[in-house]
Amino acid sequence: MATDIQTSDLKSPVDVAEYLFRRLHEVGIRAIHGVPGDYNLVALDYIPQTGLSWVGNCNELNAGYAADGYARVKGMGAVVTTFGVGELSTLNAIAGGYSEFVPMVHIVGTPSTLSQRDGMLLHHTLGNGNFEVFANMSKDISCAVAKLNDPREAAVLIDHAITECWRQSRPVYITLPTDMVQKKIEGERLKSPLDLKVPENPADKEDYVVDTILKYLHEAKNPIILVDACALRHHCIDEVHDLIEKSGLPTFVAPMGKGAVNETLPNFGGVYAGNGSNAGVAARVEAADLVLNIGSVKSDFNTAGFTYKVSQLSTIDFHSNLMRIRFSEYPGIHMKGVLKKVTAKMGKLNVQPGPSHDNTIAKKDQAMSNEEVISHDWLWPRVGQWLQPEDIVVTETGTAEFGIWETRYPKGVTALSQVLWGSIGWAVGACQGAALAAKELGNRRTILFEGDGSFQLTAQELSTMLRNDLKPIIFVICNDGYTIERYIHGMDAKYNDVQTWKYKDLVAAFGAKPGQAKTYQVKTKQEAEDLFQNKDFGAASCLQFVELYMPMEDAPKALKLVTEAAAENNAKQ
Amino acid sequence: MATDIQTSDLKSPVDVAEYLFRRLHEVGIRAIHGVPGDYNLVALDYIPQTGLSWVGNCNELNAGYAADGYARVKGMGAVVTTFGVGELSTLNAIAGGYSEFVPMVHIVGTPSTLSQRDGMLLHHTLGNGNFEVFANMSKDISCAVAKLNDPREAAVLIDHAITECWRQSRPVYITLPTDMVQKKIEGERLKSPLDLKVPENPADKEDYVVDTILKYLHEAKNPIILVDACALRHHCIDEVHDLIEKSGLPTFVAPMGKGAVNETLPNFGGVYAGNGSNAGVAARVEAADLVLNIGSVKSDFNTAGFTYKVSQLSTIDFHSNLMRIRFSEYPGIHMKGVLKKVTAKMGKLNVQPGPSHDNTIAKKDQAMSNEEVISHDWLWPRVGQWLQPEDIVVTETGTAEFGIWETRYPKGVTALSQVLWGSIGWAVGACQGAALAAKELGNRRTILFEGDGSFQLTAQELSTMLRNDLKPIIFVICNDGYTIERYIHGMDAKYNDVQTWKYKDLVAAFGAKPGQAKTYQVKTKQEAEDLFQNKDFGAASCLQFVELYMPMEDAPKALKLVTEAAAENNAKQ
Ligand SMILES: Cc1ncc(C[n+]2csc(CCOP(=O)(O)OP(=O)(O)O)c2C)c(N)n1
Ligand SMILES: Cc1ncc(C[n+]2csc(CCOP(=O)(O)OP(=O)(O)O)c2C)c(N)n1
Ligand SMILES: [Mg+2]
Ligand SMILES: [Mg+2]
Repeated sequence: MATDIQTSDLKSPVDVAEYLFRRLHEVGIRAIHGVPGDYNLVALDYIPQTGLSWVGNCNELNAGYAADGYARVKGMGAVVTTFGVGELSTLNAIAGGYSEFVPMVHIVGTPSTLSQRDGMLLHHTLGNGNFEVFANMSKDISCAVAKLNDPREAAVLIDHAITECWRQSRPVYITLPTDMVQKKIEGERLKSPLDLKVPENPADKEDYVVDTILKYLHEAKNPIILVDACALRHHCIDEVHDLIEKSGLPTFVAPMGKGAVNETLPNFGGVYAGNGSNAGVAARVEAADLVLNIGSVKSDFNTAGFTYKVSQLSTIDFHSNLMRIRFSEYPGIHMKGVLKKVTAKMGKLNVQPGPSHDNTIAKKDQAMSNEEVISHDWLWPRVGQWLQPEDIVVTETGTAEFGIWETRYPKGVTALSQVLWGSIGWAVGACQGAALAAKELGNRRTILFEGDGSFQLTAQELSTMLRNDLKPIIFVICNDGYTIERYIHGMDAKYNDVQTWKYKDLVAAFGAKPGQAKTYQVKTKQEAEDLFQNKDFGAASCLQFVELYMPMEDAPKALKLVTEAAAENNAKQ
Repeated sequence: MATDIQTSDLKSPVDVAEYLFRRLHEVGIRAIHGVPGDYNLVALDYIPQTGLSWVGNCNELNAGYAADGYARVKGMGAVVTTFGVGELSTLNAIAGGYSEFVPMVHIVGTPSTLSQRDGMLLHHTLGNGNFEVFANMSKDISCAVAKLNDPREAAVLIDHAITECWRQSRPVYITLPTDMVQKKIEGERLKSPLDLKVPENPADKEDYVVDTILKYLHEAKNPIILVDACALRHHCIDEVHDLIEKSGLPTFVAPMGKGAVNETLPNFGGVYAGNGSNAGVAARVEAADLVLNIGSVKSDFNTAGFTYKVSQLSTIDFHSNLMRIRFSEYPGIHMKGVLKKVTAKMGKLNVQPGPSHDNTIAKKDQAMSNEEVISHDWLWPRVGQWLQPEDIVVTETGTAEFGIWETRYPKGVTALSQVLWGSIGWAVGACQGAALAAKELGNRRTILFEGDGSFQLTAQELSTMLRNDLKPIIFVICNDGYTIERYIHGMDAKYNDVQTWKYKDLVAAFGAKPGQAKTYQVKTKQEAEDLFQNKDFGAASCLQFVELYMPMEDAPKALKLVTEAAAENNAKQ
């Protein structure tokens, strides 16, 4: 099938696999997640020579989750799977990346173009000669598909896919047939770096939008800023920070935007999520006469069950592909340029102070003894006191995801959570990817808050962390099963129970070498307090695994609201 | 969206979820695999009251594998997942069922029809209001799709899906929106059982085919029978057995057909897979002047790399939707009726004896001491001596899948292997499902041969076995990683290594209660021999887990052939 290019016609011949991996290196990727399979083995040989390392995950779903976590820290991630069995196993992770705007490159090693042409009855096929079924499944959860079936177009397809992955901040799907891996293509092209810049907005339209915004902004008596996920995912966070700092406007984050801005700024006011907001926040946000709403995703969990109560009449929405001022829409305008100009031309604004938050533990929760169970109301502010600047904090769907709304982060924290997609088990894989990225970036700590039920889906990635000598701190919240589900339906239902594991014993079973890991068990507030005060623990010099026991029926306030709303919505007739 | 049926119009009102589960009960299902999620919780409440039990798997992929294993033993399996995150996680298992003809019902709890109509921005969506994406992904790996969006058609859609699942022996996909679960429909319909009979063939066409077959069969000097997977999957195994026993013809199985026929029959001759056949078999099969080829799947692994060498001119192919006599095709004819008539009218045939096989260990492999490592050449016949009638034997893709070709089964063994789809990790989940089915069927032993690399993908289903008090015997072949992949490419490549686990310690970590499990470690032939002679071990009175150490570079003969062929095919330019 694939027609060779005459190697003599090439100035700097390079193999297709090498070209692909060098482009990944160029955009900042240093580690490739995935699982081998015979259709990708030869391609894997190119990994070391292109300056990359192979992670070697336990399974493909976990590998996809890890690539997601890696991407959220380093800007882009990659996962390699094998045809059919491998790629389908990771689809949920890819769909999560699509839903949550995470740039991941999914590379699938496929049978050779010759075998495909001949419709051969190969292993990992459906037995019906149809080699397109799996690629079709990935189409709607990828922002670009590149089937590398011809060396003459391979470079263009690769470059396009990686560029789109970055620009749209969503997964792309690349197939690499076995007979294409070593085909020679022109390497000269690698001398021109990919163009990852956000395209400029049309100047006059942008100016029009900026002027309109400034007009409303100057008129407003009481404007505020609300930051959400897409500000981060579309690479505008520097511009957003400039706006926040220069304007001094009260600034809030939606749950998916948590970690996007510096929470130690004096004008940072906490989490806004309708009824699930931090204390005092809803009143303040809903009283504003203008909300600069940056990168918003108004999903059920992100708005505590659609209890977001800001009128569109007092809203300016900033997006990557659209600006919206009250009800006027400006498609094709990227927030980046707009944010820059608004900040530059801002002048003097009316700034009314907002609430401010630290990690003070409420009086009622301060009691400390070896009888006191660990409660969510106590835990999350305490975690906030314990965290350090530049930490990476991963929270799993479940009580952790909602509890963390009550944690005020130190400066420079990167926060990972899957508020929209909400696939449990994700956080363990994501923690592996994030911890690896952290290692590449120097010595940032990676801290995971995981549910006991969720942990059971993807527990083996602990092994991958050990294999790659990563040093995350992992808290597993042991509360006898699916507490978040209990709050939605079936508080005492058997299906919300899980098998009781000896969680921390897995560290040794997964092959931790002496000195490579420490485990802990904390069942009371005092024990947890002692751990948080333990300097050695905080130093994170090896992998650390904590069983953190909490009562089955305890949950953060926001979780109770969200689950009630979800149950109601599910029951609506 | 869903229009209610006036309950007063119904003779025996029944809720949609109850109707569905009662139909599953009717076709023999007693246990539902899966993972809860808020979109399916209310439906799960119906499980106990319809005489079913909830398994509660650790994750959805494993649940799908388990439903597959359960189906292979009990005839049909079911898995319940939640919208998006859950269903996508299990797609690989469903595709495996499609590829390998396993009847599985996949039930997905989805957001309510109202939320879907309104395109609500809910958790577990892609955030784009498209609620069809996931169902579309399942379309090409399901033989029927039933979206239960309307109570007036729910029963018909359910009945059709379950019937097709059985008849085509392939997965079906059913969505159950939250607002449909409790809608009332007519229960009278449940009084008429589903019609699962294979439709009769048109009599004259069938007779024509039978007469033609008999003509060739009587002319043949040296006919043989070759049985493959589809004989089993399309419910023709009784007819096949009658043919084998009445005709006395030498009978062979393809690897995917292993376990389909009684291997203790005097005319059973072993495994035919071209160059990978049991000793003496290829010569015998390829010398036959007529091959009754029943339910054949000529995939690469099933034919040891397309080394199947029987001419179509001396072949009669029996399929569920087609008969083929030499090159003449008879579409729309099911083998079942044909087999019955051929056996009935057979008369006297020319029967030339074939090779016969027992589990004799070759001289060169008999040496037994505490220095001798365990070799594949020794292990598999020895396993054959140790197995008991009615055992269920599950083998994972890897050395086990090929080694088992050298094991002669006792009578009544059910064998599970995924020769075509070949997704590793499958066998652990399948073992859970099979062991549960075995428990329902009385006291059959379930025995798993698992690779250490494969085990790492799905290890946590050990926990589900404990949770459900199952008693399989699990052998993990500890050979330091992906031996089968090493033989294809990268014998010493790092990507073919895995993290070294303390495999057997997982049993305790996953929460085995005292007396609920035993673990073993065997590193030499003598130790393995002692274990096989241990009566307690053989009694299988609790879950038993064996670390079975073998050299990294040892592999069954057939594996070497198949991997060489795969490597060549992958490299073809
Ligand atoms: C892959 C996947 N399967 C199922 C679900 C449904 N689900 C959401 S949360 C949850 C339970 C989480 O329990 P746990 O991790 O113990 O959290 P906690 O007890 O802290 O709430 C389940 C089953 C899901 N979100 N994703
Ligand atoms: C889901 C999935 N991922 C990857 C593969 C590719 N693959 C096939 S066999 C194999 C290695 C199996 O290793 P192991 O279980 O240790 O078997 P053994 O060493 O006995 O050959 C791999 C990675 C696959 N078949 N399925
Ligand atoms: Mg829990
Ligand atoms: Mg192995």
